[in-house]
Amino acid sequence: MINSYLIILGYNSSLPIYNHHPTSQILYMRENYFLIDCGEGTQSQLIKTKIKINKINNIFISHLHGDHYYGLIGILSTYQLLRRKNILTIYSPKGLKEIIKVHLKWSSTKICYPLKFVILSSRKKEKIFENKNVKIYTIPLEHKIYTNGFLFKEKKKLKNLNIDNVKKIKEININDYINIKKGNNFVKKDGTIIPNKFLTFKSQKPLSYAFCSDTKYSPKIIKFLKNVDLLYHESTYLQKFKKLAYNRGHSTAIDAANIAKLSKVKKLILGHFSNRFPYIKLFEYEAKTTFKNSIIPKTLKPYKI
Amino acid sequence: MINSYLIILGYNSSLPIYNHHPTSQILYMRENYFLIDCGEGTQSQLIKTKIKINKINNIFISHLHGDHYYGLIGILSTYQLLRRKNILTIYSPKGLKEIIKVHLKWSSTKICYPLKFVILSSRKKEKIFENKNVKIYTIPLEHKIYTNGFLFKEKKKLKNLNIDNVKKIKEININDYINIKKGNNFVKKDGTIIPNKFLTFKSQKPLSYAFCSDTKYSPKIIKFLKNVDLLYHESTYLQKFKKLAYNRGHSTAIDAANIAKLSKVKKLILGHFSNRFPYIKLFEYEAKTTFKNSIIPKTLKPYKI
Repeated sequence: MINSYLIILGYNSSLPIYNHHPTSQILYMRENYFLIDCGEGTQSQLIKTKIKINKINNIFISHLHGDHYYGLIGILSTYQLLRRKNILTIYSPKGLKEIIKVHLKWSSTKICYPLKFVILSSRKKEKIFENKNVKIYTIPLEHKIYTNGFLFKEKKKLKNLNIDNVKKIKEININDYINIKKGNNFVKKDGTIIPNKFLTFKSQKPLSYAFCSDTKYSPKIIKFLKNVDLLYHESTYLQKFKKLAYNRGHSTAIDAANIAKLSKVKKLILGHFSNRFPYIKLFEYEAKTTFKNSIIPKTLKPYKI
Repeated sequence: MINSYLIILGYNSSLPIYNHHPTSQILYMRENYFLIDCGEGTQSQLIKTKIKINKINNIFISHLHGDHYYGLIGILSTYQLLRRKNILTIYSPKGLKEIIKVHLKWSSTKICYPLKFVILSSRKKEKIFENKNVKIYTIPLEHKIYTNGFLFKEKKKLKNLNIDNVKKIKEININDYINIKKGNNFVKKDGTIIPNKFLTFKSQKPLSYAFCSDTKYSPKIIKFLKNVDLLYHESTYLQKFKKLAYNRGHSTAIDAANIAKLSKVKKLILGHFSNRFPYIKLFEYEAKTTFKNSIIPKTLKPYKI
């Protein structure tokens, strides 16, 4: 099985600059491809990943500032041209449905595939997606307009049987396997307990990824981010502009690093850098003073969760 | 003075492909920068031309299929971030204003610069722009939805005086210069006519550019295109797909070449190629059989009008 990974398609902030792309990410997690935010040009970036666009069934939009969603209508049109059949679900704040509807009206387009909007409006964390492998929650953020981050969590996998050891216990038959795979001990008729760890291999811990863009420094979210394996947190400004950042509903690199540190995440990826700072390595430098495992991303590089 | 030129920012048709861009062009004509169509990613392409985005004051949208306008909202947002002050005028079919309004509503944005919409609805050629140097007309096209091409015409320039010859005619004084520059002969008191060509240098002929995308083969437009210096005409399909082209409101390369030939244009640039044809040189090959001066464009290369 392929491990979960994240590809950052763009991490630029709102003002476009040469050879950079606005916010968009693709997360592969246990057989699912999730598209997170969708700035202008996302579909061109997707082509470069060679991930088939039709594999995406769920799109998550954090908020309705253009650098996070202007590329969506293009993707929806491409699905139309490709005669998509699968249902596509879009999770976003109120408004996007109206925007898409107006676009389609004026091009006289009737979408040929089922398009579902899940409208997010809660100010509290809520579960918005669950299938057999993955659960997804909102992370309420604090920005100029209503904004959510998203927390993606792998579900616990069934354990693999240590079949050599299982065979040593004559009483175990095939009907008991599922219980053992779930992590339960086996109890023999005479009451002897065979511990689960003798009967199974150690299974991989379920992994988690959190996406937080855009937001001012918001310690309220720390409780949602506890121990996540990978955190993407915006850092629009360097520390010198701390006040401006806060007033504009954005974070500094140190803010992001503080959130990472207090949440005890394993790794922090920074992004959404203001283009007033041409040398973005400085963001990493500042963040590392607070949280060592901080990096600035490389576009299109897969990051293991 | 810089001569008029055209830069093609993208010439792809609707389905996105690697490293290609949907329709958008920038025309420089006598101190004006005109943006013609505006597919997704236009502003990223504009950055590469190094033309300052603020120099564009007029945007022309042929029709409301996404590959011709999805990049517009991004440009309007960028102007907002750059605190644009100049009036921006958008010439387009009905609908675009509503689309832009809905986008702005949901991002709680109040545009800080004057934004004017000129709504095109006529099925006849009409003059939609005129300043001291340039006139612009619509070219009614035949597509699936209401669509216009655009004809850009330089106005006649005042002629430069041949000052050595002017001085030979004692009776001419400075007040007569403007009439001579306009091309009039000079008449002496004794009735002698001094021909204008003795008094002036030969002036450059006013140049013209015509943009025709998207349209099926439409001989009605030939009369509008007579003798233009440069014609861009869509050619979505090769001749083998002539019927499909017509049914879908598109042209073949030979259709475009026929229009060019019958209009006696000087040069034809093809574009809007369907991505079912990976080897686009074939479009040029087919067109050349009918109209020799046909080319497929290079993105970002300036073409003299």
